Amino acid sequence: MARPRSEEARRKALTAAADLIVERGVGNLTIEEVAARSGVAKTTIYRHWPERATLILDTVRDSFLHVGTPDTGSLRGDLEAFFGRMVRADLSGQVGQIMPSLLDAAGRDPEIGLLLDQLTLERQRPILEIISRAQERGELPADLDTRVVVGTIVGPIVFRKLAWRQPIDAAYVKGCLDVAIAGLASLSRQNLPSAAR
Amino acid sequence: MARPRSEEARRKALTAAADLIVERGVGNLTIEEVAARSGVAKTTIYRHWPERATLILDTVRDSFLHVGTPDTGSLRGDLEAFFGRMVRADLSGQVGQIMPSLLDAAGRDPEIGLLLDQLTLERQRPILEIISRAQERGELPADLDTRVVVGTIVGPIVFRKLAWRQPIDAAYVKGCLDVAIAGLASLSRQNLPSAAR
Repeated sequence: MARPRSEEARRKALTAAADLIVERGVGNLTIEEVAARSGVAKTTIYRHWPERATLILDTVRDSFLHVGTPDTGSLRGDLEAFFGRMVRADLSGQVGQIMPSLLDAAGRDPEIGLLLDQLTLERQRPILEIISRAQERGELPADLDTRVVVGTIVGPIVFRKLAWRQPIDAAYVKGCLDVAIAGLASLSRQNLPSAAR
Repeated sequence: MARPRSEEARRKALTAAADLIVERGVGNLTIEEVAARSGVAKTTIYRHWPERATLILDTVRDSFLHVGTPDTGSLRGDLEAFFGRMVRADLSGQVGQIMPSLLDAAGRDPEIGLLLDQLTLERQRPILEIISRAQERGELPADLDTRVVVGTIVGPIVFRKLAWRQPIDAAYVKGCLDVAIAGLASLSRQNLPSAAR
């Protein structure tokens, strides 16, 4: 368990790192600047994060709202609850600026690439849990392609945020969920291997 | 009409700019470096692109495959043709690295932001034309929300490319199009205002 003073330093460093990423990008983040901006000693920062990449990972994790995994009893209810909290938090978050910078840096730095993969896996876990429960209830077929499920549910939201850099509104989320839920359920009703359709 | 020598210089500068963006990002691109890398005089570069932003816009446009707008007679045929060419070109293109850098720079530089908006509008035009023809044929309802249509068709593809940085394969594209087409068509069959569902 971190001591209170240590926790305060950790928090200050994460806030400074998030601000610096927003201003200059993941690729230009240095421990020196985090120390200067936060007033936390470099040695303390290195004690918390021996590698620059782990500081970046914690900063990005920290910028995400921890939405949890809703369990409302229906696929639509779960997804609306999940994205609903995101929509309400959207205006204040820095994540809309931090993510593009992380995607950009990932292509140039393999260490950041691994970090992004880890984060992407973490971020899709609630969706997979919601889908798995819907499959147990018989709302969705059992043999869906995980990539297609995550892509059709999360893709339209991420696309709008990244390409248009605008807050996601509830009407957009509802429209996209209507399409994804009806589309995924229709795969169930057709119930044929892709090649036969 | 550009003279041949002028066109050759233009082409060299665009190639150098694309390489530099891949290596160091849109935010770090300078005319000086494009001149040094391409061997094209700075004055020549400025004659073609008086503003740094227009050079970036042309470089990004140039990196996109010009897929055109297929007209096969059906919504599924048009979309499969459109994304099929993208899938085949995907492995060789630099666009997978250039786009994240552009998205990142757009959040920090309003001029780049305007440029990204222009590019996003250009890029969604073929999709809107394909959708419009499907509506005329009665394959899709007339009153669809354009944002939802573009988001559910393009979003899953862009998401997979950006978040996973992997080539898009044909099975993924087909799965996502199955979901989007069935989902959008189901809005037609329900044919009720969103609020009433």
